[in-house]
Amino acid sequence: MSWLPTLITDTPEEGYDLAIKLSRMAVKKTQPDDAARTKMRPDYANDADSLTAVSQVVATNFQTVAAANGYWK
Amino acid sequence: MSWLPTLITDTPEEGYDLAIKLSRMAVKKTQPDDAARTKMRPDYANDADSLTAVSQVVATNFQTVAAANGYWK
Amino acid sequence: MSWLPTLITDTPEEGYDLAIKLSRMAVKKTQPDDAARTKMRPDYANDADSLTAVSQVVATNFQTVAAANGYWK
Amino acid sequence: MSWLPTLITDTPEEGYDLAIKLSRMAVKKTQPDDAARTKMRPDYANDADSLTAVSQVVATNFQTVAAANGYWK
Amino acid sequence: MSWLPTLITDTPEEGYDLAIKLSRMAVKKTQPDDAARTKMRPDYANDADSLTAVSQVVATNFQTVAAANGYWK
Amino acid sequence: MSWLPTLITDTPEEGYDLAIKLSRMAVKKTQPDDAARTKMRPDYANDADSLTAVSQVVATNFQTVAAANGYWK
Repeated sequence: MSWLPTLITDTPEEGYDLAIKLSRMAVKKTQPDDAARTKMRPDYANDADSLTAVSQVVATNFQTVAAANGYWK
Repeated sequence: MSWLPTLITDTPEEGYDLAIKLSRMAVKKTQPDDAARTKMRPDYANDADSLTAVSQVVATNFQTVAAANGYWK
Repeated sequence: MSWLPTLITDTPEEGYDLAIKLSRMAVKKTQPDDAARTKMRPDYANDADSLTAVSQVVATNFQTVAAANGYWK
Repeated sequence: MSWLPTLITDTPEEGYDLAIKLSRMAVKKTQPDDAARTKMRPDYANDADSLTAVSQVVATNFQTVAAANGYWK
Repeated sequence: MSWLPTLITDTPEEGYDLAIKLSRMAVKKTQPDDAARTKMRPDYANDADSLTAVSQVVATNFQTVAAANGYWK
Repeated sequence: MSWLPTLITDTPEEGYDLAIKLSRMAVKKTQPDDAARTKMRPDYANDADSLTAVSQVVATNFQTVAAANGYWK
């Protein structure tokens, strides 16, 4: 079973959640060690600039998902 | 009730506000603790580079919203 | 009266000015206190990297405005 | 044999993997020394902001790959 | 006479030069003092990361100019 | 002879190489002194975050080149 069978979602909200999933997957594939990622969580979850950077990645992936879905029009 | 029922807005200004909402939602979903986010606010609201980074995320999301609305033409 | 009634401009130069306006508005909406923003101005106006980051936001918004205007062709 | 014979992939997941490959290739072409790259790995694999930056590059390349594949629709 | 009468250029190379001009103009409009900008030049012209950031802005503006010109096809 | 006669390439791999060339040219035009650029090379070639930033610029330029070539389909 693929973690990414399709870019198509029923709703914009589900598309946004997929954008978040896409953003996290690149991190997971670069640092596959679950414990190492968990350890880093407080570093970015409590740093405003880190969170803004995360939001930037999500925004970029949401562009892709939204385009794939014809903007759910 | 979805927080993102549609990308369609009546006006460019409402589209811009939606872009801001999209930008903040990724932060909220990464750091769901309201108190933690509130605590960070002075960090970025008084730092020019942090504000520029926020504006970069909004610009990226506004691209998506504007495209979804056919640029309100 | 909306601060953003339309993305359409008569000329590329006016479109560029609108891109700057869009870039600043996200800052203003994140830090609405005029005095706080004015106080930060020397921080970024005299820092090369800060100015490059501002230019990045303007470039992103200019993509949107240019597309909205059919590249003024 | 080209390392990039095509942007077309059978599935979104394979497209995502190609986006990762594209992201790494620019690093490899800028720093061709394998040992130098290996030495740097702990620097970014254990730094949340570095991983977010990697994810940003992947997101940008995934936009390209997804568009090339008509979003696998 | 407008500094940006059109996004159309005869060649890709001229389009690239226009992308550079667009990138610099946002800096100039944010810091209009010529002496202040000149003073900052050694800061970024001798810093690899600063130059990469400048190149990122140019790449973003070149996307706009290239699209405006139908990629000079 | 132009350094950028066209954005069209025969293959995706050549397109990727052109994206790298575009990324470097903005650096060269901002810092035309060859010796100064050579001196900076160890700074970014041995820094993971610097290399990621370079890869981000290449990804952005590759979007342009890929679109210009109709994604080599």
